[in-house]
Amino acid sequence: MKDALLTDDAVRAAAHALRGQRGDEVDEAIARATWSVLTEPGDGVAGALIRELGAVEALRFAMDGGAEAGMAVSGTVRARNALAEGRKRWMPRADPRAVTEALRGASQVGARLLVPGDADWPAGVDDLGEHAPHALWVRGATPLLTADPRVSIVGARASTGYGDHVAAEIAGDLAAGGAVIVSGGAYGIDGAAHRAALGVDGRTLALLAGGVDRAYPTGHHQLLARIATQGAVVSELPCGAAPTKWRFLARNRLIAALGQATVVIEAGWRSGSLNTAGHAAALGRPLGAVPGPVTSAASAGCHRLLREYDARCVTSAAEVREMWMPGAGSTSSPPATDPDLIRLLDALSSRVGNEVSELARRSGLAPQRIQALLGLLELEGAVTHAVNGWRRTVSP
Amino acid sequence: MKDALLTDDAVRAAAHALRGQRGDEVDEAIARATWSVLTEPGDGVAGALIRELGAVEALRFAMDGGAEAGMAVSGTVRARNALAEGRKRWMPRADPRAVTEALRGASQVGARLLVPGDADWPAGVDDLGEHAPHALWVRGATPLLTADPRVSIVGARASTGYGDHVAAEIAGDLAAGGAVIVSGGAYGIDGAAHRAALGVDGRTLALLAGGVDRAYPTGHHQLLARIATQGAVVSELPCGAAPTKWRFLARNRLIAALGQATVVIEAGWRSGSLNTAGHAAALGRPLGAVPGPVTSAASAGCHRLLREYDARCVTSAAEVREMWMPGAGSTSSPPATDPDLIRLLDALSSRVGNEVSELARRSGLAPQRIQALLGLLELEGAVTHAVNGWRRTVSP
Repeated sequence: MKDALLTDDAVRAAAHALRGQRGDEVDEAIARATWSVLTEPGDGVAGALIRELGAVEALRFAMDGGAEAGMAVSGTVRARNALAEGRKRWMPRADPRAVTEALRGASQVGARLLVPGDADWPAGVDDLGEHAPHALWVRGATPLLTADPRVSIVGARASTGYGDHVAAEIAGDLAAGGAVIVSGGAYGIDGAAHRAALGVDGRTLALLAGGVDRAYPTGHHQLLARIATQGAVVSELPCGAAPTKWRFLARNRLIAALGQATVVIEAGWRSGSLNTAGHAAALGRPLGAVPGPVTSAASAGCHRLLREYDARCVTSAAEVREMWMPGAGSTSSPPATDPDLIRLLDALSSRVGNEVSELARRSGLAPQRIQALLGLLELEGAVTHAVNGWRRTVSP
Repeated sequence: MKDALLTDDAVRAAAHALRGQRGDEVDEAIARATWSVLTEPGDGVAGALIRELGAVEALRFAMDGGAEAGMAVSGTVRARNALAEGRKRWMPRADPRAVTEALRGASQVGARLLVPGDADWPAGVDDLGEHAPHALWVRGATPLLTADPRVSIVGARASTGYGDHVAAEIAGDLAAGGAVIVSGGAYGIDGAAHRAALGVDGRTLALLAGGVDRAYPTGHHQLLARIATQGAVVSELPCGAAPTKWRFLARNRLIAALGQATVVIEAGWRSGSLNTAGHAAALGRPLGAVPGPVTSAASAGCHRLLREYDARCVTSAAEVREMWMPGAGSTSSPPATDPDLIRLLDALSSRVGNEVSELARRSGLAPQRIQALLGLLELEGAVTHAVNGWRRTVSP
């Protein structure tokens, strides 16, 4: 049993076909593909075990039910119990045929299997620690996973015309500027963001909650196919895996981890996008929310992010860029306005002339101060002095 | 000259008519009314002098040009220079007739003169320090100035239907709950807030940039008359004073100081409401901004407040109330959801039954864990066990 998953001929042949590796070289990929079959996303016990032993040894250890006593695995009683529980979860799926199917399924749709250490493995997902994905299945351009900058744009499936418009504007602008738009391939905001990126011949990544061989939602079959061609479709679930509610929630952590910043555009009060936002905040990634009308339920989640998650209010692509490039925006400081000047201009008329004494009375400024300011204003052509006193010149 | 403003018969008679005081009693009121005539709002030199000497002595000192040398006024060269400059500002207006006119003007429109120490003097404005108003002229119910709670609601003159709607909703709800709505009497958001308060028989204060005898804007003549009857119209400028740009800016600090919290509803990128907001922030008053569509220029200033002033995003009267009553809102925490339960529910079908082994494979959970969860779900009536296994019950 112990090595059955690693030594199975069909598994090894399928892994070779996918990775082009042989012998010991392919063991790591097989082990990680197997872990992605055995576990549900974010299985922290598997993550800790892999971190301690490496994917190959962790797999041998997990499959060898009687080995605990003799192994050098450090561990409290609690850790040992967790491991025993983990093993109970993993064993029902420990079937070489399932691993073979996952690997063959990937080959059939032209997907690649990425594991840590591969050139295109995105370091950002390792920030998830024990909850990092064991492997990533990718249809499309794997270099996009590490291209800079990457911004995650997510939001309501039931978006409004306003949200779709803003998502398209922001994602299109960012993608045109070279950013990789990361999203979840869903209806609504996700779709608008992906489409806008494709529309400007930009780059975009779709993170799925099921296998990359399954278009979900089915209505986005064509969109996902375009993303796989022009960008990349990514999942930690093996080919054949169906999306489930849990997998959607777990997928959200990958969207947050893959983006260097996350922006939410429209989200209901209990939207799944808040889950993505929570992951981004927990990972220390800049989090932005696009406000909307307070009368729109579709923006309630965004306003909640501004209130409760300390998200940054973003209203344009420039402001989104500022999230990872402080100072990149066009924020201007208010004009420095001399209060005395405002008062003097208040006191001046463009119709009738006023002498300094009258201007002093009207403005509450000292006559000397007025003389000085009038001198400046005259140089600027803002006032003229005529027979009956000073007056403002009328600007065209 | 020194005492001319305090001893002038017409001044004293007008002050008595207004305040009902005689002799030494009325001196303070006369001095402060005079300061409100001599200075433009926020004159920090006058404010510092009054703080040091009291309004009466400060006035005598200011009018006595040769007294500096002998006075016990502490002061650096810079302070003495500031004082000399101040005197040059004040002297052109030092005319007893102007003070008499201000006092008589107030009597004619039924306005009252409030000075520090009066029961209805609002302590909040003293937070402005040297820039606090010397006196307040009030038409209407002076107790509103100290009634609790007071919330300042300001915004764009060129408001949109959205802004007017939200201002009316929030101000109406707050006023119906007993809050005093403080605003600037302007077109747009200010007017919508005042009207909503009046509409629910609530209380509202309008802070004007000119004398309370002048309806400005003139199109709000009737509205301001209603506010003076049902609430109060307030200014630091004496009757007869015209609003100027400087006075509008200075008036904004009073709106910020009078409210226990300030909320901005719609504001352009360079709106005067940002000036009010800046004062509120500088005074440490809670500052809120209502978001709107990012496609609306009328909300750009509000989004700027969220981004640059650390304003709180507020979307309802309940959230505004939270600004001075933390915890008063209805913020709910996300539902505590057991990840294992989500996974098991994902794995269960309502159409076909599944045995525990199959559920284990589908969910990635250990069989024992599934047994335990199924037990709970069965108690809740969420699952049933039939011949061919467990299935979800369909909720009606």
